[in-house]
Order: sequence, then C-alpha cells, then structure tokens
Amino acid sequence: MDTTEKKRELKPVVSMRLFTEQKCFGPGIAELLRRVDEHHSLRAAAQSMGMAYSKAWTITKNAEAGLGVKLLLSSTGGKNGGGAALTDEARRFLSGYDNCCRRLKSFAAELVAEEFTFYQGPEETE
Amino acid sequence: MDTTEKKRELKPVVSMRLFTEQKCFGPGIAELLRRVDEHHSLRAAAQSMGMAYSKAWTITKNAEAGLGVKLLLSSTGGKNGGGAALTDEARRFLSGYDNCCRRLKSFAAELVAEEFTFYQGPEETE
Repeated sequence: MDTTEKKRELKPVVSMRLFTEQKCFGPGIAELLRRVDEHHSLRAAAQSMGMAYSKAWTITKNAEAGLGVKLLLSSTGGKNGGGAALTDEARRFLSGYDNCCRRLKSFAAELVAEEFTFYQGPEETE
Repeated sequence: MDTTEKKRELKPVVSMRLFTEQKCFGPGIAELLRRVDEHHSLRAAAQSMGMAYSKAWTITKNAEAGLGVKLLLSSTGGKNGGGAALTDEARRFLSGYDNCCRRLKSFAAELVAEEFTFYQGPEETE
C-alpha cells in the first residue's frame, strides 16, 4: 500500500436558516447585508453578487416582515442619488448570525471527526 | 402593552453537507438512501420523493465517487424485477450523518438562544 497517498478527508459545510412563522434570515440576506454595508446601496450590493435588484429587494422585505424589524435605511435622491445603510438591528442580527455560523462550523468539524471514524477514505479496489 | 401577545421566536434550521474533493453527502442523498431502504428500489425511492430516476441515479453515483465507497447494491431481473439495497457502508454513513444532524440541531438551538438575546420580537410600532 502506498502510504504517501492522502486519505480522503470529510469536510463539513454547515448552513443555518432562521425562522419565525416564515423563513426570515439565512446565508442570502446575510451576504446581502454585508455588501450593502460595503457598497452603501442595495442596488450595488445586489449587482456585486449577481443578484437581480428586485430579488434583493424581496429578500430584504421578507426578512424584515419575518423578523418584524427594519434592516435597511434608505435615502432617495441627494448628491449620491440615494443609498442604503444597515440599521443597528441589522448589525446585531448579522453579528449574531455570523457568531452562530462560526461556532456551528467548528462544532461540525468535531462531530464529523467523532461520527465518521469508520471512514478511512476510498475502499481498496486492487 | 399586551403581554398575552406571543413574542416571536427564532427557530434555527441547520443543514450539513460533506465534501471530499467534491460534494458527496448531504440531505438529498441521505433522504434517498432512507427511501431505498424502505422501498428496496432506487426507482421507487426516487418516485416517492418526486425525483426523476435519472437524478437519483446521478446523485448516488456522485456520492459513491466522492466518497470512494459503494452505497447501493443493485440486482437486475429476478422475480421482483430488480431492486436495490444499502451497503453496510451506506448504513454507517447514514447513521453518522443523522447523528451529526441531530447534535447540530440541538447545538444550534443553544447558540441562537445565546447569540440573539437582544431580539425581543417585532419592534413596537405604536
């Protein structure tokens, strides 16, 4: 047996969605909020992730309705032609969500190491 | 304030996918394997979850290739017109996966209770 060949490793990828009565927060809105914070505009944020503006708008409105809190502050017109900023509540959600994801990721790695001890990589077919 | 009104609760739903060099195990193949075990046929399993047989076949082959292990034993012909059964390895994967998901779910509930203490439900708009 060639011991220099690397054993195939199982790497977990975990995703979390939050629900109230309806789905309201997940990877999509989290990424969108991060990009609004960077681009100061919902349109530019959507564009930067290849998402239609109308979809970004719907995702935001659904998240706000599901949580019952305002996530974006919009200004229209003005010298920058309008823009968007995160509310304090949006920052708290994003930060809580990111913390959960980070801790879940680390826990998932421990779990997989524990639960798949039997897995030694591909079966020998020779 | 009407204290009989229920505070909106955040409920997490977590999903885990496993990767080697490629995606190889997740909720789709797990559900498919459970149903093969129930229906003793990949075609019947796929049908029971509204999935095209060709898709079920591809998902299975991709998972087997990614993990480097055989998941399904197929028999063709015979008095039952062929069928499928889980390999021991498939049972071990399914069981490890289900354990991980159960433990992640319970951890996610703890995390959300910890990380979203600021969330008291919808803002008062009155």
